[in-house]
Amino acid sequence: MRDAVRQATLAELVDHGYPGLTVERVAERSGVHKTTVYRRWGNVEGLISDALELAKDEPWPVPDTGSIEGDLRGIVQLVRSGFADPELGPVSSAFVAAAVQNAEAARALHEFFMARHEQSAEVVRRAVARGELPDVVDVREVIRVAVAPVYYRLFVAHEPVSERDADRAADAALAAARAGVL
Amino acid sequence: MRDAVRQATLAELVDHGYPGLTVERVAERSGVHKTTVYRRWGNVEGLISDALELAKDEPWPVPDTGSIEGDLRGIVQLVRSGFADPELGPVSSAFVAAAVQNAEAARALHEFFMARHEQSAEVVRRAVARGELPDVVDVREVIRVAVAPVYYRLFVAHEPVSERDADRAADAALAAARAGVL
Repeated sequence: MRDAVRQATLAELVDHGYPGLTVERVAERSGVHKTTVYRRWGNVEGLISDALELAKDEPWPVPDTGSIEGDLRGIVQLVRSGFADPELGPVSSAFVAAAVQNAEAARALHEFFMARHEQSAEVVRRAVARGELPDVVDVREVIRVAVAPVYYRLFVAHEPVSERDADRAADAALAAARAGVL
Repeated sequence: MRDAVRQATLAELVDHGYPGLTVERVAERSGVHKTTVYRRWGNVEGLISDALELAKDEPWPVPDTGSIEGDLRGIVQLVRSGFADPELGPVSSAFVAAAVQNAEAARALHEFFMARHEQSAEVVRRAVARGELPDVVDVREVIRVAVAPVYYRLFVAHEPVSERDADRAADAALAAARAGVL
């Protein structure tokens, strides 16, 4: 039942955006009784938080190419291709959009990204262990700086993101880490 | 009249967000007759585009500290302090939020950022002229990479942005530019 409600929440978010999301519609789409949805999820914010909570635990295939350059590029390309994916892209975009409109959704998305940064930072830790980067490096900041230009293009400047743009963002974060800035 | 309508659009965006923006409310708040607003601006998207069009021409104090390090840090601090400003911050945030909900607002915000990138790139051009950076550098990309982590924290990961975070983002872009990555 939790998964049915979650899938319905995602589909409704994609179809109608945050302003169009209602408990009634999610209940109808999921086939779960309205009173049950209200009792268990409370409101729209509860539905979004729960959907993101589930997303946080989804496998995120952290690359392991043997070099920090390959791994960082791999992570940024995963972000780029995820948003370009016809199924996944609209769902992820709907989360970003919901979070700028609602504080509860923002908190849930924050938690999601903290988990994602922590998972992804593994590639930086491995690079430190291999002696590719200084051990004073801020492992999560390398991830933030690497992915930020992709999100900036997509959700702020509203520009397309090419594969080359993504590689360049990864390379820039790596150059900064090597220079001791991060 | 254009400025009154623009101010009313901004105030309504801040108070009610994009979903609550209506031509009627903007007309009432601005003191301009509803039929005039409809005739001249058409709809909500027209109001947002026009407000952003005006914002594009507002003076943007591109720093000139004598060094690329100081100039880039200055630009990123301007972005950070702008969003932290109690008057300006909510307006700028409302634009970002409107653009993820509406394609017309996204186009207007895109134009705004293209103009802002172009203005800000002047600091990179001056650095090239002074011999601080290689002349093959992508001047606009240096700006994007410098400001992106601030926007990423604010609108995607929903994290606070400290002055140090902003300086570090500027320094990271500069290190990447010096390394020949940008």
